[in-house]
Amino acid sequence: MPSVAVLGASGYAGAIAARLLYRHPTFDLLHVTARAEAGQRLDDVHPRTRVPMILERPDAVGDVDAAIVAYPHRISAPVVAALREQGTRVVDLSADFRLTDRAIYEDYYGSHQAPEHFGEGVYGLTEHHRAEIRDADLVANPGCYPTAALLALVPFIDVLSEVVIDAKSGVSGAGREANATTHFVSADENVTPYQVSGHRHTPEIEQQLGGKTVTFVPHLVPLAQGELVSAYVTPSHPLSEDEAWERLDDAYATEPFVELRRDPPGVLDVRDSNFCRISASVDPRTGRLLLFSAIDNLWKGAASQAVQNLNAMYGRDEREGLL
Amino acid sequence: MPSVAVLGASGYAGAIAARLLYRHPTFDLLHVTARAEAGQRLDDVHPRTRVPMILERPDAVGDVDAAIVAYPHRISAPVVAALREQGTRVVDLSADFRLTDRAIYEDYYGSHQAPEHFGEGVYGLTEHHRAEIRDADLVANPGCYPTAALLALVPFIDVLSEVVIDAKSGVSGAGREANATTHFVSADENVTPYQVSGHRHTPEIEQQLGGKTVTFVPHLVPLAQGELVSAYVTPSHPLSEDEAWERLDDAYATEPFVELRRDPPGVLDVRDSNFCRISASVDPRTGRLLLFSAIDNLWKGAASQAVQNLNAMYGRDEREGLL
Amino acid sequence: MPSVAVLGASGYAGAIAARLLYRHPTFDLLHVTARAEAGQRLDDVHPRTRVPMILERPDAVGDVDAAIVAYPHRISAPVVAALREQGTRVVDLSADFRLTDRAIYEDYYGSHQAPEHFGEGVYGLTEHHRAEIRDADLVANPGCYPTAALLALVPFIDVLSEVVIDAKSGVSGAGREANATTHFVSADENVTPYQVSGHRHTPEIEQQLGGKTVTFVPHLVPLAQGELVSAYVTPSHPLSEDEAWERLDDAYATEPFVELRRDPPGVLDVRDSNFCRISASVDPRTGRLLLFSAIDNLWKGAASQAVQNLNAMYGRDEREGLL
Amino acid sequence: MPSVAVLGASGYAGAIAARLLYRHPTFDLLHVTARAEAGQRLDDVHPRTRVPMILERPDAVGDVDAAIVAYPHRISAPVVAALREQGTRVVDLSADFRLTDRAIYEDYYGSHQAPEHFGEGVYGLTEHHRAEIRDADLVANPGCYPTAALLALVPFIDVLSEVVIDAKSGVSGAGREANATTHFVSADENVTPYQVSGHRHTPEIEQQLGGKTVTFVPHLVPLAQGELVSAYVTPSHPLSEDEAWERLDDAYATEPFVELRRDPPGVLDVRDSNFCRISASVDPRTGRLLLFSAIDNLWKGAASQAVQNLNAMYGRDEREGLL
Repeated sequence: MPSVAVLGASGYAGAIAARLLYRHPTFDLLHVTARAEAGQRLDDVHPRTRVPMILERPDAVGDVDAAIVAYPHRISAPVVAALREQGTRVVDLSADFRLTDRAIYEDYYGSHQAPEHFGEGVYGLTEHHRAEIRDADLVANPGCYPTAALLALVPFIDVLSEVVIDAKSGVSGAGREANATTHFVSADENVTPYQVSGHRHTPEIEQQLGGKTVTFVPHLVPLAQGELVSAYVTPSHPLSEDEAWERLDDAYATEPFVELRRDPPGVLDVRDSNFCRISASVDPRTGRLLLFSAIDNLWKGAASQAVQNLNAMYGRDEREGLL
Repeated sequence: MPSVAVLGASGYAGAIAARLLYRHPTFDLLHVTARAEAGQRLDDVHPRTRVPMILERPDAVGDVDAAIVAYPHRISAPVVAALREQGTRVVDLSADFRLTDRAIYEDYYGSHQAPEHFGEGVYGLTEHHRAEIRDADLVANPGCYPTAALLALVPFIDVLSEVVIDAKSGVSGAGREANATTHFVSADENVTPYQVSGHRHTPEIEQQLGGKTVTFVPHLVPLAQGELVSAYVTPSHPLSEDEAWERLDDAYATEPFVELRRDPPGVLDVRDSNFCRISASVDPRTGRLLLFSAIDNLWKGAASQAVQNLNAMYGRDEREGLL
Repeated sequence: MPSVAVLGASGYAGAIAARLLYRHPTFDLLHVTARAEAGQRLDDVHPRTRVPMILERPDAVGDVDAAIVAYPHRISAPVVAALREQGTRVVDLSADFRLTDRAIYEDYYGSHQAPEHFGEGVYGLTEHHRAEIRDADLVANPGCYPTAALLALVPFIDVLSEVVIDAKSGVSGAGREANATTHFVSADENVTPYQVSGHRHTPEIEQQLGGKTVTFVPHLVPLAQGELVSAYVTPSHPLSEDEAWERLDDAYATEPFVELRRDPPGVLDVRDSNFCRISASVDPRTGRLLLFSAIDNLWKGAASQAVQNLNAMYGRDEREGLL
Repeated sequence: MPSVAVLGASGYAGAIAARLLYRHPTFDLLHVTARAEAGQRLDDVHPRTRVPMILERPDAVGDVDAAIVAYPHRISAPVVAALREQGTRVVDLSADFRLTDRAIYEDYYGSHQAPEHFGEGVYGLTEHHRAEIRDADLVANPGCYPTAALLALVPFIDVLSEVVIDAKSGVSGAGREANATTHFVSADENVTPYQVSGHRHTPEIEQQLGGKTVTFVPHLVPLAQGELVSAYVTPSHPLSEDEAWERLDDAYATEPFVELRRDPPGVLDVRDSNFCRISASVDPRTGRLLLFSAIDNLWKGAASQAVQNLNAMYGRDEREGLL
């Protein structure tokens, strides 16, 4: 039974990763860590996990076979590096190992904190990188927006002419830090675009779309968990709705966690789950392809996709511990 | 003092129109009507109006100088026709007199119920049709989505090449009818695209943009009132951000109800008000113009814009009763 | 493997019962039924169940070993009667078999629709009726408010002098019917007391408290699932806070689904779970005992408690399928 | 035209006070102040105020006739003292001048920061202290919970035997500070009791009830503004429902801001207004008097009641600027 740890288990995504691994039939969760909240029980900090383990200091994690690292970007890199150097396989939830072009990384995130390992991550969008993930020792779990956007767009990668991505995310996407943005009174009954040019997930999406330039604008909506991507694509040649569905069927008919539905998805349909629900239509008047993709930003957009990747890395059924 | 009536005052928008006119310094609110709820007091049905008037049957409305009609499309047309025939000036909140092409109207709404008056409405987007509104006897108040979308797009009408409009609306936009969509448990913690092709506001937007074809997709978000339009425009020739702001300034610098702000607007900023808040930026990587426009769908998107139009029709300061 | 059915699986509680039994290691879910929505797939009506079974007409349910019946009161009784007569063991979510005094039942609910079976139900508050539930063929699953209230109050049953119960419930407690109360725009940003005297759960609570008369007032709060009971008790003799906790510990220390915590519980702590979280304190100035009890009204207050009872009826670990 | 200032206008209540006074027909708003946000425009910090004034440093406020002070307790006292010493009439929103027993004040709040002025405040529950308020130079505006609770309870002050107050407040009641409690993800879909014994509003309520000891428990509910008090009273002698309504009618029939309604009030009925809506019933089974009282915690519970008091202090119609 492979031993695992979750580093950064006091954050939203880390706590869910711990909750899933604590009950997982294959993995043995040995450690959960936190920085500020070390010493507390995880289920006191996050009752819904019902994981009665003590949050340890990060350096208390000894040899484990695998780890999910749920630290912020730049803080994650050296932690991941140390784990890799002791032979631990890692799924990293940060952006530190997702990009292949270091200049772009440093443009968006600042200097990389473990440059000797830069570029070592296999991009962990399970449905599209399964083969490499199986053999990987370092999986760079995708960002939440890229997960939803790419699952919708990748089947059309060869016909993307113009791409506009309008995304809506619940407030947990802004993290556990209390600030003016995450205050209930600011977010409640509100919808706001934010980081309208240059959100950090843009280069990640573009890299996975073969360098295709896209416009990506996220919006904050008043709910806790959930993310909807509405993608507006001008195809490079006319595409019928049937052809669009054929491409989606080809890509996902046998995927356990992608649900194709004619009706546009609501984020509530996939709440607290590893599912991504996708719908497509073609606007007959403009020929534009409309793609809608819903995930739970903390699950398929972070923690549960990390577990799906761990399952793949250890040759398990990807659904283990996730249904 | 011109006498006025609000027909359909038991709906969300009608109730707000009555609330505004009841306290208006220029108009004398004589009648409020409802069909199913006739006989009840308006402030029992809608406490926040604090209008202690009895809802009358529609046929109880005698001669009034002006009326705001807040009925659903197709039910509105004959009521408006009757009012017009007795000489009452009308602001109609329905879609029945907004379109100029009857075939398009009937395609989206079915047969028109007062065809002899079709096309008589002056389009009531106050900021752009002020001169005609002043002289009009029948003002077709814009739909909520067109209001937000057009205020953002009209200043760029000559340079619109590709236009994608992604809109988010609170649940009051779906009306007061209780159904599966408006049930709290369905809408809460959810975001859903709806009517993704062929929403009825599309032809209205296109008509006002000189026939420009657009993609328009509305989404339901979990809040009561508020609407955000995010418009993604490929300009027909490169446009700098400065030029974009110059156009907005030219259009709106002296407008009492349009607020231009560098930061993208949140719908909460304009809640319960007649303001529309607009922001623009140009995505330097793609050259796309990004426009964000926030209104309260029941106020500037319906009731308070109707009052703004009444003010204009009677030569009053447009701000009367609205600040 | 006992075969089971869920009747009324298109309601909120029935859908969750089906979701739990579909994945349950011991039971074999053979049928899910609905009246209006028969013929549809359960996961089309309630996506989050991910139960790909067709909703059948109620009369399609043949011999099954056990059934959870999730029909409204009065409609449930004859359905339960028919199941019992064919030997099926039943957990009934309605109020039809909870009360022992038929006059009281008929006072609150109208004439009983299967009077020959009146009073046959064993009250299904698992923690306090476990022994009888194990042998029962008809378990009357408690109402949501009684579940939360009784788990807090029963340990003090011998010292209750004055009892005031102020309860707060999410909107799912009002059921799936779309009406003025459940409309998003009515419930959002609102808190309202309702049925302030004579709510139907009052006699059920009183019966389980040995006939003690209580004041019970429910309130609607703007959230989907969750219920908090705040109980204010004047004890018949002075009670120290230590003694209060001792009684709770005695009652629940070994219970798998009752969590005792010093900090007052939030309903979010128990969302989507079978847990009940309870806290107690004694107001030193008045000597009043303050009890706070949080559950998910659809889970421990309905569906998951029904499964807990099924587990008990079949001699299984009560936690099976619920963690 | 009396000149006024609002000190602490960057907080929720201060901003609303400024918004009301900026449009008030009688007062001339000369200054708005803030500490951390001095230098910004108020309508940038709080767009909905639409007050285009610069927030000044507190010490920039010179001689004004009157001031509303919206600082936290203990910080308020010396500011109020300084204003009083220069002859400015003050409505203070903090708790610093509400209590008459200094030992109790210091027990709940710590040492008083302007002890020479302790006890100088006239308690500003307008409906019950109107005469003294008219002549007062220092009005201690009531806390939000006391406002709602006392308006319901004072008419029964002579018959209160046992009093339990269960209150529910929106998140703005916790202030503008971003912390774990006010984070959207903590408050959304949650209901939590807090400060279950010893909330600071308890002694204030008790003082105004002639020293009657009460149990008061506040709860946080997921909405921005609004407060409901549910009071459970055992009367000292049997009270009929008719008698209860008679007492309420006697107290409030001519009050402009108290609405008596048979149906229990929802907080949404009084949102963004100075109204308090009250309902009463008598539980026939226990004889308990049930009182429900709804206000907007930031309006009648703070800012608009302060303006109502200013109106009274200057001999104006109390409704001025508030309808």
